Amino acid sequence: MTEFVIPRSALQKILSPGSVAVIGASDDPFRIGGRPIGYMLSQGFQGQIWPVNPTRPQVQGLTSYASIDALPGVPDVAVVAVAASGVLPVIESLGQRGTGAAIVFSAGFAEAGPQGALLEQEMVASARRHGMRILGPNSLGMLNPRNGFYGSFVSSVELGFPLSGQVAVLSQSGAYGGHILALTRARGIGLSACVMTGNECDLSLGEMIQAMVEDDQTHVIAVYSEGIRDGASLMQALEAARLAHKPVVMMKVGSSEIGSAAAQSHTASIAGNDAITDAVLAEFGVVRATSTEHMLDVARLATRRVFPVSNSLGVLTVSGGAGVIISDAAEPLGLALTEMPQASQERLKAMLPFASPRNPVDTTAQFLNDMSLLGQFTDAVVEEGNYGSLLGFFTYTAGTPSTAPKLRKELKRVREKHPDRLFVLSLLATPEWVQTYEDDGFTVFEDPHRAVAAIAAMHTFGCAFARAPRQAAPSLQGLHAPDTPLNEAQAKHWLGQAGIQCAPEAVCLGADAAVEAAQRLGFPVVLKIVSPDILHKSEIGGVLLDVASAEQVRAGFDTLMSRARTAVPHARLDGVLVARQLSGGVECIMGLTQDPVFGPVAMFGLGGIFVEVLKDVVFHRCPFGPDVAETMIRSIRGAPLLLGARGRAPVDIAALAQMLSRLSVVGDLYRDQVQAIDLNPVLAMPQGQGAYAVDAVVEIKTQ
Amino acid sequence: MTEFVIPRSALQKILSPGSVAVIGASDDPFRIGGRPIGYMLSQGFQGQIWPVNPTRPQVQGLTSYASIDALPGVPDVAVVAVAASGVLPVIESLGQRGTGAAIVFSAGFAEAGPQGALLEQEMVASARRHGMRILGPNSLGMLNPRNGFYGSFVSSVELGFPLSGQVAVLSQSGAYGGHILALTRARGIGLSACVMTGNECDLSLGEMIQAMVEDDQTHVIAVYSEGIRDGASLMQALEAARLAHKPVVMMKVGSSEIGSAAAQSHTASIAGNDAITDAVLAEFGVVRATSTEHMLDVARLATRRVFPVSNSLGVLTVSGGAGVIISDAAEPLGLALTEMPQASQERLKAMLPFASPRNPVDTTAQFLNDMSLLGQFTDAVVEEGNYGSLLGFFTYTAGTPSTAPKLRKELKRVREKHPDRLFVLSLLATPEWVQTYEDDGFTVFEDPHRAVAAIAAMHTFGCAFARAPRQAAPSLQGLHAPDTPLNEAQAKHWLGQAGIQCAPEAVCLGADAAVEAAQRLGFPVVLKIVSPDILHKSEIGGVLLDVASAEQVRAGFDTLMSRARTAVPHARLDGVLVARQLSGGVECIMGLTQDPVFGPVAMFGLGGIFVEVLKDVVFHRCPFGPDVAETMIRSIRGAPLLLGARGRAPVDIAALAQMLSRLSVVGDLYRDQVQAIDLNPVLAMPQGQGAYAVDAVVEIKTQ
Repeated sequence: MTEFVIPRSALQKILSPGSVAVIGASDDPFRIGGRPIGYMLSQGFQGQIWPVNPTRPQVQGLTSYASIDALPGVPDVAVVAVAASGVLPVIESLGQRGTGAAIVFSAGFAEAGPQGALLEQEMVASARRHGMRILGPNSLGMLNPRNGFYGSFVSSVELGFPLSGQVAVLSQSGAYGGHILALTRARGIGLSACVMTGNECDLSLGEMIQAMVEDDQTHVIAVYSEGIRDGASLMQALEAARLAHKPVVMMKVGSSEIGSAAAQSHTASIAGNDAITDAVLAEFGVVRATSTEHMLDVARLATRRVFPVSNSLGVLTVSGGAGVIISDAAEPLGLALTEMPQASQERLKAMLPFASPRNPVDTTAQFLNDMSLLGQFTDAVVEEGNYGSLLGFFTYTAGTPSTAPKLRKELKRVREKHPDRLFVLSLLATPEWVQTYEDDGFTVFEDPHRAVAAIAAMHTFGCAFARAPRQAAPSLQGLHAPDTPLNEAQAKHWLGQAGIQCAPEAVCLGADAAVEAAQRLGFPVVLKIVSPDILHKSEIGGVLLDVASAEQVRAGFDTLMSRARTAVPHARLDGVLVARQLSGGVECIMGLTQDPVFGPVAMFGLGGIFVEVLKDVVFHRCPFGPDVAETMIRSIRGAPLLLGARGRAPVDIAALAQMLSRLSVVGDLYRDQVQAIDLNPVLAMPQGQGAYAVDAVVEIKTQ
Repeated sequence: MTEFVIPRSALQKILSPGSVAVIGASDDPFRIGGRPIGYMLSQGFQGQIWPVNPTRPQVQGLTSYASIDALPGVPDVAVVAVAASGVLPVIESLGQRGTGAAIVFSAGFAEAGPQGALLEQEMVASARRHGMRILGPNSLGMLNPRNGFYGSFVSSVELGFPLSGQVAVLSQSGAYGGHILALTRARGIGLSACVMTGNECDLSLGEMIQAMVEDDQTHVIAVYSEGIRDGASLMQALEAARLAHKPVVMMKVGSSEIGSAAAQSHTASIAGNDAITDAVLAEFGVVRATSTEHMLDVARLATRRVFPVSNSLGVLTVSGGAGVIISDAAEPLGLALTEMPQASQERLKAMLPFASPRNPVDTTAQFLNDMSLLGQFTDAVVEEGNYGSLLGFFTYTAGTPSTAPKLRKELKRVREKHPDRLFVLSLLATPEWVQTYEDDGFTVFEDPHRAVAAIAAMHTFGCAFARAPRQAAPSLQGLHAPDTPLNEAQAKHWLGQAGIQCAPEAVCLGADAAVEAAQRLGFPVVLKIVSPDILHKSEIGGVLLDVASAEQVRAGFDTLMSRARTAVPHARLDGVLVARQLSGGVECIMGLTQDPVFGPVAMFGLGGIFVEVLKDVVFHRCPFGPDVAETMIRSIRGAPLLLGARGRAPVDIAALAQMLSRLSVVGDLYRDQVQAIDLNPVLAMPQGQGAYAVDAVVEIKTQ
C-alpha cells in the first residue's frame, strides 16, 4: 500500500492518491479519457498512472492494461471515463479489487431521467458493498495542483493550469467549476484542490467540505452550489469549518424564481427557500457571495488569515472622493468608520492644515510634495486609530513611476511594524508593482468597493470564529407528541404545556357556557368555531370579534355553529372558543416549517401587512435559545415598532423571545410528527405584560 | 483666429483649442506647470503651445514668453499653474487679451475657507468682465485624446495615455478623475474628453455635460459627482442628452451618512437628499452607477449604441449553472427571461434531447462534440426569440485553443446576419481572443453578473430615449400665493382651490357652533385646535378622535381650547375644526419640499409606520401630470395595499394621482413662497370614492 501525503481519512486519500487507474483511457490527450492522463503527465504527478484500455498496449506513452483485473496493484483512485451503459461492471470490478474511490465522469444517470436514476442507485449499491466511495457521476472530477493529481477532464486548464496554494474550490457545476478554476489562475489565487461534485450519488458537497476542513494545507474554502442535497452533512461540515477557523465563502445560486426553476431542471435537486438558505449560512458564519468576483475577492483576502472581530475600519486616502466612495460602501455592510482619537486629529491637522484627519483620513495631494507626510499619517491611523481593519486608497500614485517607489517605502516601513493587521490597498499599478505590494504583506484591490466588500467578509468570519457559545434552548418536559389533528383549543393547550402562552380562553359546548365564560374573562371577547376539520376559520366566517355583551355572545354562538355546518357539513364541531380580546399589543407572527433540506426552521415577523406585503420575516434553524430568538426579533426591518418607535411603548421582547425559542424546541423535538405551526397573530404586549398567541394552527405530518 | 475642429459653441473651443498658453510653465515635465506641456508634446498636440515664464527663454524646448502681454497671439485657452495669491492679475491679463477660457489648477480658493472664497469671487468677476470662462479653480484640468490637448497635470497618464474614442469622462474630483482615466485605458475604453471640474466657480458640471452633448464625437457621457452645485444647468444638460440619445452614466457618491459628511467637507457643496438625487437622475434616464466598475462597464457597452426598449433577455449558455446565475442577476434588475416560442423549444429539444430550450437556452456540454449545434441554437435564440437583448455564456470554451476557433466561427456567422442587435458575451480568453470577439461585434465581459447589469442599463437608456411625451401637469387658475402663515383650515381652503380635496369640515368659534357642525357632518367627528402658531397639533394634545355625540363635542371643544392655552400661551386661537371622521380608507402621506439643488420635489408614501419606520416613499420633481403621479404611487413597496392585496378593496388610485399631481403644480407655482407642504394623512378611499387630505400643513418661506 502506498504512503499518503495526508493519510488522515478516507476522504484525504482521494485528494492525494498514490495510484490512479483511468478506465476508458485514451491516447488522444483532448478526449475525455485522455485529458486526465495528459494533465498528470504535464503537471508531474508523482504517483502511479495506470491506463485501462483493452485495445492498446500503450496510452500516451504509459503502459496500458487490458482490464481492471490486470492492474499491477490496487488503485487508490479510479477515474471512470466510459459510457453510462458500461459503468456498472467497471464499478463492481473496482470495488472487488478494493479501490478506495471512483471518480465517475460519465453522464446519463439521475440527471437524465428515471432510468438513469435507477442505474445510479445500482452503482451506489455496488460501491457500498465493497466500501468504495464515488465522486459523481456526471462529474468533471477533481484535481490537486499541489501534487499534480488531475482526476478531471476540465478543459479550462488549457488557459493555464491552476496555481498551487491554500484555497479549496468546490463546485456543484462542472462547467462553472472550470470557469472558476480559470479565474483563480488569472487572479493569482493558489489552490489546494478543486472538486466538481456532479450528481453526488455518494460523496456529498458536505463531505467534500469536511475533507477540506481536515486538510492542513487548505486554509480557505470556496463553494459554488446550485442546490443542497444533503443538508445534514453540509451543516456538520460548516460547523467543523467554523470551529477550525477556516473561512467558507459560498455562492449559492437560484435566488430568483426563474433561477430556482432552472436550478431544479439542471440538478434535479431541491433549491429550497432562499431566505432559509441565507439564514443557515449566516448561522455558520459562511459568507454568501453575491457574484463570482465577490467569491474570489473574499477567498483571496482570506488567505491572509486575519479575521478582525471589531467592525471598525480605518481609511487612509489621497482623494476625498475615494473617501466618500469607501464610506458609502462600508455603511450598508456594517463596517463603522469610527473617528480618529481627538488628539491624533489635532496632531495631524497641525502637521497639514488642509488635511481631513477624521476618518477617512485624507492626506490630500499634499503628500506628493512630502512623502514623509503619508508615512506619518499612516502611522497615526495604524497605531492610534485602533481599527479592526485598514484600507489605504492610493490609486495611480502607488503605481506611477514618479511616486510609487517613495510611497512604497513609507507603507512598507509601517507594515513591517504591524505585520498582523488586516491591511488592504486599493490602487492602480502594473502587475509587477501590484506583486511588490502583495509581497510586502498587503492585499491589493483595484476597485475600492470590492476592497470594502472583502474586508466586511473578513469581519463576518472573525465574528463567527469568536462567537461565544449560545444559550441552551429551553428543555421541555412532560410534552407528548400529538398524533391526531388538533383543533385550535387542543393546539393551544398542547403549546401551553410547552410554555407558549395563549390569550385567556375557554371552549364552550353551549351558548350558556359561552356567556358564563365571557362574563368570567371580561368583555369584549372573541368567539371562534372549534373543529379539527376547519384549519382556516376566518375563511368560513368562523371568527367573531368585538363581542361586547351576553346577548351578543349568545347570538354569536349560534351564528358560528350554523356557519360551520353549512361550510363543512361533515366537520366535527367541538364547540366555540371564547377568548378575552386583548388590545394594546403589536401583532406579530411566528411560524415553524420543516424544511426538506435543513430540517425544522422557525420564522418571526410582524403581523398583517408586514408579512403579507413586505415579507419582513426572519428565519432560524431549530432549536435555539432566547438569545438567538431576541437577535432574530431585533433584526427585522420593522423592529422599531417593537422597540418603541415614535413614542410607542416598547413591547415585551423577553416574552416574545421566550415564546419563539420554545416554539423552536417544539419544532425540533417533534420534527417527525409536526409539519408546521402557525401562531398568527401573536400579540406582543407592553414590556412586562407578556406575549400571547391569539390563534394557533398545528399541522400534523401525514404518514 | 485659428480654425477649430468643432466650432459649434464657446464650450467646444475649450475642447479643441488652436492655441494654449501655459501660465507658470515649468521646464521640469514632472512639475505641475510642466506636465501639460510635456503631455502635449508627447501626444502630438497640433495647436500652438505658448509657455509663459518670466525667467526662461525656453521651456521644454519651446519658446517661452515673459508675460501674457508678450504672447504672439490671443490664446484660445490658458492653463493657469501659479499660486492662488498670483492668480488674480493673471486672470485679468488673460481677460484683457480676449482669451476664450482659463483652466485654473491653483488650489487655495473656496475649498480652503472664507478668504479663498472671496478670492474666487473676485476671479470670477474679473473673468466675466471680459467674457472669459473659467474651469476650476482647484482643478486637475481637462484633456482631449483625439487631438492631444492636455490642459491637465493629472499624473495617472504615467500608467499610459488615454485612448482616443467616444466616451467623455467628467469628474468633480481630480484624484478620482485620474483614477477613472487610468481605468479606461486598462479596459480599452476610448475617450473623447476628460474634464475635472474642480470648484466650478464658473463652468459647472452641467455646462460641461452640455458641451459633450453638443460634441459630435462624444457618444457616451460618464460622470463622477460628489455634489451638484447647479441643479438647473445639470438638469438642462441631462434632458439635452436624453433628447440627443446620448447615454449618461453617473456615479453620484455621498449616499451614506459619513459619506455625505465627507462629501460636504471635501467639496463645500450640497450633497442633497440621496433619494431625491435618485429620483431626478431616473427622471432623465441617467443610469446611476453603483461602483466605478459598474460605471465603466455601462459606458463600454453603451459605445455600441444599441438601446433596446424591450426588457426581454435571451440567454444562450453552455452551463446550466451560469444560466441560473444570469437568471438571479436579471430578475432584480427588471430584465425578463421570457420563454422561447413553444415551436422553437420543440425543435431544439428534438435536435438535442438533453438540452434546456426554454431560456436560458442551455446547449449543455454536448456542443463540444458538434459545434454546429451551438450555431443552430444561437440562430434560434436570435431569430425566433424576439428578445430585446442577447447574452451568451461560453466561459473558457470560447478561449481554449481546442474549441475557440470553431466556436467563434459559429457565433460570427450569426452575428453577421444581425449586426444591429445588442449581443453580449461572457467568456474567458486571452486579451487577443477577447479582441477578436469584440472586432466581430460582440461586447465581452468576464463576469456574467456584470454583463447582465450592463445590459439592464442599455434597457434603461432605451426606455428613456423612447419615452412618449408625458401628460401635461394640470393648470391651476385663480389661486393666489399665500403670504402669511396659514392655519389648518386656511391651508385646506387654499389647497381646495387647487383641487386638493379635504375631508368635509367646518371651523367653529364656539361650542354651540361645533355641535351644530358635527350634527350636520355626521358622527363620529374629529376635533382639532386651529391656530397658525401651532403646526404640530397632536404634540400638544390638540386632536380628539372618535367624538361620537353632541355632549362629547361640547366637552371636547373646551378641552382643546384649554390645552392650547396652556401649551402655547400666546398662540392665536382661531377656534376648533370639526371634521367628519372618515373610515375605510388607506392612510397615505403626500409632501412637498423645496430642494436646494433640484427645486420643488413632491413625495408620496403610505402613512403611519410605512413612512416612519420603513421610509417607503417616492419622490419626483415638480410639476408633473397624473401619469407620473400614478407611476410613483404604484412604485412603492407597499403598493399592493393600495391595489387590493389579499382581498382588500383597491383604493381610488386615479383620485390619489390627481391630488399628487396638483400638489406638484402648487409646489412649482409657489416655489418662492411655499417652503413645504405636508398632507398627512391623506385617506385613499375605495375606488370611485376619492381621496381626502385629513390634515394639511403649509409652511410659508421666511423672507
